[in-house]
Amino acid sequence: MMRTFEQLTASQQKEVERQLQLYMTGAHEVIPPEELKAKLVKSISTGTPLKIKLGLDPSAPDVHLGHTVVLNKLRQFQENGHIVQLLIGDFTGKIGDPTGKSAARKQLTDEEVQHNAKTYFEQFGKVLDPEKVELHYNSKWLKTLNLEDVIELAGKITVARLMERDDFEERIAMQKPISLHEFFYPLMQGYDSVVLESDIELGGTDQHFNVLMGRHFQERYNKEKQVVILMPLLEGLDGVEKMSKSKHNYIGINEHPNDMYGKTMSLPDSLMKKYIHLATDLELEEKKQLVKDLETGAVHPRDAKMLLARTIVRMYHGEKAAEAAEHSFKTVFQENSLPEDIPAVNWKGEKTIAMIDLLVKLKLLSSKSEARRMIQNGGVRIDGEKVTDVHAKAEIRENMIIQVGKRKFLKLQ
Amino acid sequence: MMRTFEQLTASQQKEVERQLQLYMTGAHEVIPPEELKAKLVKSISTGTPLKIKLGLDPSAPDVHLGHTVVLNKLRQFQENGHIVQLLIGDFTGKIGDPTGKSAARKQLTDEEVQHNAKTYFEQFGKVLDPEKVELHYNSKWLKTLNLEDVIELAGKITVARLMERDDFEERIAMQKPISLHEFFYPLMQGYDSVVLESDIELGGTDQHFNVLMGRHFQERYNKEKQVVILMPLLEGLDGVEKMSKSKHNYIGINEHPNDMYGKTMSLPDSLMKKYIHLATDLELEEKKQLVKDLETGAVHPRDAKMLLARTIVRMYHGEKAAEAAEHSFKTVFQENSLPEDIPAVNWKGEKTIAMIDLLVKLKLLSSKSEARRMIQNGGVRIDGEKVTDVHAKAEIRENMIIQVGKRKFLKLQ
Repeated sequence: MMRTFEQLTASQQKEVERQLQLYMTGAHEVIPPEELKAKLVKSISTGTPLKIKLGLDPSAPDVHLGHTVVLNKLRQFQENGHIVQLLIGDFTGKIGDPTGKSAARKQLTDEEVQHNAKTYFEQFGKVLDPEKVELHYNSKWLKTLNLEDVIELAGKITVARLMERDDFEERIAMQKPISLHEFFYPLMQGYDSVVLESDIELGGTDQHFNVLMGRHFQERYNKEKQVVILMPLLEGLDGVEKMSKSKHNYIGINEHPNDMYGKTMSLPDSLMKKYIHLATDLELEEKKQLVKDLETGAVHPRDAKMLLARTIVRMYHGEKAAEAAEHSFKTVFQENSLPEDIPAVNWKGEKTIAMIDLLVKLKLLSSKSEARRMIQNGGVRIDGEKVTDVHAKAEIRENMIIQVGKRKFLKLQ
Repeated sequence: MMRTFEQLTASQQKEVERQLQLYMTGAHEVIPPEELKAKLVKSISTGTPLKIKLGLDPSAPDVHLGHTVVLNKLRQFQENGHIVQLLIGDFTGKIGDPTGKSAARKQLTDEEVQHNAKTYFEQFGKVLDPEKVELHYNSKWLKTLNLEDVIELAGKITVARLMERDDFEERIAMQKPISLHEFFYPLMQGYDSVVLESDIELGGTDQHFNVLMGRHFQERYNKEKQVVILMPLLEGLDGVEKMSKSKHNYIGINEHPNDMYGKTMSLPDSLMKKYIHLATDLELEEKKQLVKDLETGAVHPRDAKMLLARTIVRMYHGEKAAEAAEHSFKTVFQENSLPEDIPAVNWKGEKTIAMIDLLVKLKLLSSKSEARRMIQNGGVRIDGEKVTDVHAKAEIRENMIIQVGKRKFLKLQ
């Protein structure tokens, strides 16, 4: 018989409270908190670990800091003995988008899916203990469904419920076509939770609708409903848009330590509190203290940001690499006292271009001859390094910083 | 190379025109006429028969006159060498309604489907030549579809297009739930036409949306689109509602000749023109002449109606049965000069009831003793036959007519 919180021993109750507080901290929303507590009571009283599900799109293997917000929360569960279910949505990946319109959903081969899954797994291994992760491919059960099963599944949800998804609602309002097969993705996501019998599913707040599908279908297949934990989205380096590869505002956890460090240093101060809480593995108390010091001015923003950058590099490349990255940043950047707010511009031109043409195209200098003279006078630096050859070619790179003279700076994206 | 109408021989052109006029006569709508003509050109020039599809719901085996409107049109095609594809929707029949709400769609077993299909086939045999009919069960191909096929199928239609179906539109407007699986029925009906490669699909005007699905999906699976012929719906004996078993206003083509004759005689005059055109196999010229005589009064409505009744009984029971039915009608009814407009009442009571109780319950007589006296005086008739025994029991039957005294008549439904 299932025991209630009150029937637990004092130490078990304390453990439930501890884990509950740990998991709720930093979460944007827990749906619903009382069920999370009930699951912890069951898990602790019976000694059976909870199953925590995270769905992954097999077409985007490059993991960036945005993903780690959810990964860090998964790690908390793993460290307390619960089982992480990584679900690779390879079934949908392999079908792609039958209407062929959205290029994002191009059809992946089995090899591509396996490859992407492996890359995910390696990168996640930097946050989670790979030994204790269950890897699932939803093609395993989805490809066995026939039309009768699909009709049974579809009989368990109404059109109106599906239309509540924001993007569906908007497109209907704007009379934009929604192809019927798009209704199947939330259906499959929900059915995955039925098969996996997940206790909890994690996702970013933009996954609100899809992640709730698991609860919807588990209930209608008479299974215990999963709890949903929505993690806040991490804005990217531009401080505005959600971090994502396509927006060029991301820090990849596989990037070179120096790039990671340099990129973190270019973070707007307004985002530091959020990155400290969501993107670092510092203890809760340490996080709170650092944020308080920042707010009271007890620590200079630049130093706090360097601690943040060092922590992030350490998490993915280790302590030694973190120190080296900090050292290189100091030598290259600090001596040249890089300004805080470097204007950014979207570079649409060629990847390799004569330095002189680049400077003129960016209107940093008005003519080629002026550009040649500035180089000869040692007044042009790329990422802190002086350009000495007037015939030099520039290799355009992400967030490359160009300095002309003492005060002119420009960042390319 | 496909020949055009102009490239046909004169006699071929005449044959195309003849068949075109035959098939279009009596049809409510042909979508679109030019493609029907093109198909006839192809069929006649290449000598390949057209494939004419009629979908049947396996849960309602009792065929009534309403069905024959479409059957008579099918017969015209069959008599001109084209192939009739009778499609039994047994796949949907066997799933029934997964939400369990609509009792109409209860789940049928294989045996039930086979039984119903057989009964259909026998009854259709009274209109079509069974030898030249192809019987198809859509479970044959539908049960082989897996989720990937279903997603491909669903990728070929938008939600908005499905929402154009009248009942879907109404239910959305009235915030009534539509379960997602209901979107699958038109999808399957369309896919059936893709598999059967039907040239033409027939249906009543209430099937407008579903029958057009065949065109929609054939086009998206790069097949030649079928032409749709919508036949008008036949009102039932009440003159108002579409003929249907559940509305008790139908004439079953398996009913006893006397019932068929008697029921046809109870038809409102306003429907005679429609029944003559849609429910009889008279030649087109005969039909036109009879309708004209009716309108000009050259024939008395009663006599026209008897010709109609005799024709209908002849179509399903043969000439001899038709004459016998007419004779029995004359003896039973005409001597008792039955009134034209007998009030009808829905009988909710038991199937067998004491005559005396029936007469009081129907308020034809105010008390049991009065009812006993009326019977003893020979003033009570059931369907024209005098009731002589005060202890008699009444067997309640469809459209039973009770006469009390000279002028009181009541029809039970």
